[in-house]
Parts: sequence; C-alpha cells; structure tokens
Amino acid sequence: MDQRVSLITLGVADLAVARSFYEALGWQCQEVEETVFVQAGGSAVVLWAREKLAADAGIEDSGADGFGGIALAQNVRSREEVDGILAVAEAAGATITKPAAETFYGGYACYFADPDGHLWEIAHNPGFTLTEEGALVLPDSLK
Amino acid sequence: MDQRVSLITLGVADLAVARSFYEALGWQCQEVEETVFVQAGGSAVVLWAREKLAADAGIEDSGADGFGGIALAQNVRSREEVDGILAVAEAAGATITKPAAETFYGGYACYFADPDGHLWEIAHNPGFTLTEEGALVLPDSLK
Repeated sequence: MDQRVSLITLGVADLAVARSFYEALGWQCQEVEETVFVQAGGSAVVLWAREKLAADAGIEDSGADGFGGIALAQNVRSREEVDGILAVAEAAGATITKPAAETFYGGYACYFADPDGHLWEIAHNPGFTLTEEGALVLPDSLK
Repeated sequence: MDQRVSLITLGVADLAVARSFYEALGWQCQEVEETVFVQAGGSAVVLWAREKLAADAGIEDSGADGFGGIALAQNVRSREEVDGILAVAEAAGATITKPAAETFYGGYACYFADPDGHLWEIAHNPGFTLTEEGALVLPDSLK
C-alpha cells in the first residue's frame, strides 16, 4: 500500500452549512450530487452527508458527538499566518478549542473545530519544510 | 487559508499496535517522542496517543468508540490493486467494513478499519486522475 492519502472525507450534518464555512475560509468548493470537492495539493477534501459516508463505509453511526480521534493540520510559514487564519476561522464561526500558543516542539499553533466538530490545527513548525507549492516534507530523520 | 492538508493525525490507543499495523501495510514509520510519522505524498500521516491528541487540541475526549465522521481514501490504478491492498490489510488485522464492490460512480472500492477504528477506503475511480507520483487531480469540473 503506497504512502499517500487521496481523499479526506468529512462527514457533515448540513452540507450547505459546511460548504459555507469552508468557502468563508477562502476555499474553492465544487459540488456534484450533494458532494463537495476541494482540491488540496495532491489530495482532495470532500464534504459529504455523515449518514451517507457511514452507509458507504458499511458501518453503524452511533451519532456520537465530539472527538472522533482524528485531527487535520495545516502547517504555515509564520506565526503571523497562524494568527491570521485563526481570526478568519473564528469570524466564519469556528469553535476555537485551543488559542494560538507556543508548542512543546518550539513551534506555534492553535486548534479550531469546524461546524461538525472536525478539528483543524494551524501550525508553524520551524522543523518541517514547506515547499513553494505547500507540500510538507518531513526532516530526513523522520523519513 | 490555503487548500492543503499537511498532517493527518490518527489518535491511537496503543502506539506499538498501530505502528505494527501500518508497517504490515508496507509503510515506513519513524518514531520520535512516542509519535510516529509517515511521509505520504505532500502530507504526512501521524500516529499519536489519542489522549495526547485530545489534550493538545484542548478538548474533552468522551472516549466514544466508533465512527468519528471522517474517512480517509487511497485511490489506486486498478480494481486488482483494490483487491490486493484489501487482502494485505485483512492479513494485518484490519476489520473489513465493506468488501470490495462496484460503486455508484462506476468505480470499485472497499473500506476497512484500522486497529483504532479509523476508516480507509481503497478505491479505483476512473474519473479521477492519479499522477505518476500518486497525486490525485480532480476533474476540471470539480476544481
């Protein structure tokens, strides 16, 4: 199995609400058959009704609210960019779960939750390389 | 906010178990400070204790088992590759939640859950381009 992730599908309660939130963050959303697609580097983020995702995956959805054990992160190039994105997210209605602060690894990061509780960390980590195109490259010691 | 995902962090109950599972899938895992990193295209997958992730994100973890509303997908180049990865995952101890079958969009896909219940879809979707390097490129109508 190759080491790559093609799609990250976020199950949502209300597709229009979720789409509006990500559009407010500046994302270009395209919708087809009640599914929203966002090209994100060499992957895509997909917004899809949570019950359809559960049915597609062949599982029961207990509908448990809250933390599902996954967080997404976007690494950025400066502390100022962390603050800027957090302000935009807050204005878009995100729930800030952790205000921006210095991290144990010498970086600077915050977390917010989208309207469905999906967690995003916005991080400036001087130890991780971001290419001009935005690809994350782990240090050699971690590859 | 740029359209990209740098890190996908999977909260796990037992780091050694999770690491062994992904290594059995053929992934190169590097561990530092009880955190496992896997370079995955222009992103990285991270395995980290679920309680540490919840604490880092500033949230309560109800510890609810089951579906968290997110699925990851890896798109592959053929139906045979879907079957091959599913067999490897099953041998590694994955729970198959949906056997490989034709999909409503004219593709072929299956789902399995990793030891912590995180869902992976393995899909052959003829409508989505995979570059030589494995990057997913949405059709123009979805960009």
